[in-house]
Amino acid sequence: MRLRIDLSYDGAAFHGWAAQPGLRTVQGDLEAALDTVLRTTGTQLTVAGRTDSGVHARGQVAHVDVDQHDDRLARRLNGVLAHDVRVRSVSEAPEGFDARFSALWRRYAYRIADTAEAMDPLRRGEVVAWPRLLDVDAMNRAAAALLGEHDFAAFCKRREGATTIRTLLDLAWERDASGVLVGTVRADAFCHSMVRALVGCLAAVGEGRRDAGWAGEVLAGQRRDPGVTVMPAHGLTLEEVGYPPDDDLADQASRARVVRTLGSTP
Amino acid sequence: MRLRIDLSYDGAAFHGWAAQPGLRTVQGDLEAALDTVLRTTGTQLTVAGRTDSGVHARGQVAHVDVDQHDDRLARRLNGVLAHDVRVRSVSEAPEGFDARFSALWRRYAYRIADTAEAMDPLRRGEVVAWPRLLDVDAMNRAAAALLGEHDFAAFCKRREGATTIRTLLDLAWERDASGVLVGTVRADAFCHSMVRALVGCLAAVGEGRRDAGWAGEVLAGQRRDPGVTVMPAHGLTLEEVGYPPDDDLADQASRARVVRTLGSTP
Repeated sequence: MRLRIDLSYDGAAFHGWAAQPGLRTVQGDLEAALDTVLRTTGTQLTVAGRTDSGVHARGQVAHVDVDQHDDRLARRLNGVLAHDVRVRSVSEAPEGFDARFSALWRRYAYRIADTAEAMDPLRRGEVVAWPRLLDVDAMNRAAAALLGEHDFAAFCKRREGATTIRTLLDLAWERDASGVLVGTVRADAFCHSMVRALVGCLAAVGEGRRDAGWAGEVLAGQRRDPGVTVMPAHGLTLEEVGYPPDDDLADQASRARVVRTLGSTP
Repeated sequence: MRLRIDLSYDGAAFHGWAAQPGLRTVQGDLEAALDTVLRTTGTQLTVAGRTDSGVHARGQVAHVDVDQHDDRLARRLNGVLAHDVRVRSVSEAPEGFDARFSALWRRYAYRIADTAEAMDPLRRGEVVAWPRLLDVDAMNRAAAALLGEHDFAAFCKRREGATTIRTLLDLAWERDASGVLVGTVRADAFCHSMVRALVGCLAAVGEGRRDAGWAGEVLAGQRRDPGVTVMPAHGLTLEEVGYPPDDDLADQASRARVVRTLGSTP
């Protein structure tokens, strides 16, 4: 049986999502908690967004295959986990669901306080303090050139053989009720440090150090530009992962079975 | 010259507002920062709300009398202060302004997450996790009996000679967008631990351990009821202090001067 686990975490004390020997990671903590609660060993999670060290999540989604399930699993996991990671819910996954491969998009938020009024000390763990006022309109004009399907090599850490072509669905800035500048970044998928590099590029425009056309020029350059700062991890939060309706998941799964069956005939 | 200082703080690492020898307090930190920046010694602040140990503030107001002022004082103070206290703004106070005695009301918020979905680990410093679902309607019915001018001795730590008569202007609960239960508590003034005792009383009603009429009975009893829990400090935040319009402050001040002048004639 496959379970869908929705969870949130404060990334400050974690070396990111992915399990690493000797380091505290969200995957490591949650797999250990599942082993404790289910009395198993070697539980393996699959996740929608492999967040980097220090990055937070409010809407992370993972799945795990288990032999048993009970209605109190979320509560029991929260009883075992440290307070900086919380399981929001555990549910039986619909047929064909895969936390990583079924995901249509990931939505992140990046938060910046560029005024003294907006810098709430209670939110300092998830809002980056910025010493100069940012021009939201200029940042949004610059962002428009980045939307759609592009090779985002200019904003990605190079990895041998990995594609850097992504479809950017949303990239927009607005101030929330307390004056914090919130950037919404949604794409089919992201490469390593991509959101923080996009935000660093737009912050340079917002400060007036670059004009709004620069973001498009960096994109077209297709190589990392030394003028683009990768912003601090703690301003970044994975807010939501989008999945198709359950019926579509089942269709996908049955098509995949047909392909596998056909593939196995001689 | 009198300055009005608006500030916010994360109360977790402070032994409350009021300066105490050998303990870290918000007053102590801010007075030391003012001394550093203004090159003075013995600066003394007057504050609107003397928050208890562990209680936060987003809309705290203080005043200080100084010889000089410059436009960059807020920024210079923030450069000296630790990141868990932030000066939002510094302005020349209107004539007759006193952060404590001019205040018409103080508004606090108390935040409770009574579901796994609402328990955001990024907000765990200011939201109390509650293991059972609370009935918001019952809590609001119970709260209605407490509104208005009453002797709140049942909800106050006794102090020799101090009045416990207060006017409760607002006491209402609602869920915010993320499902957190937020209690708004506004009064002309509060006695020690009063908000947290009021919330503890209403939480007992919300859980169904007491019926909605109990809050009014406790109030009428005029002595601390052992059934009333004083809730944890970290759920409580001073959100706003209300002052009269500047013209009224000036009128008050000039009336006070007349009284002083008349008082000094033989």
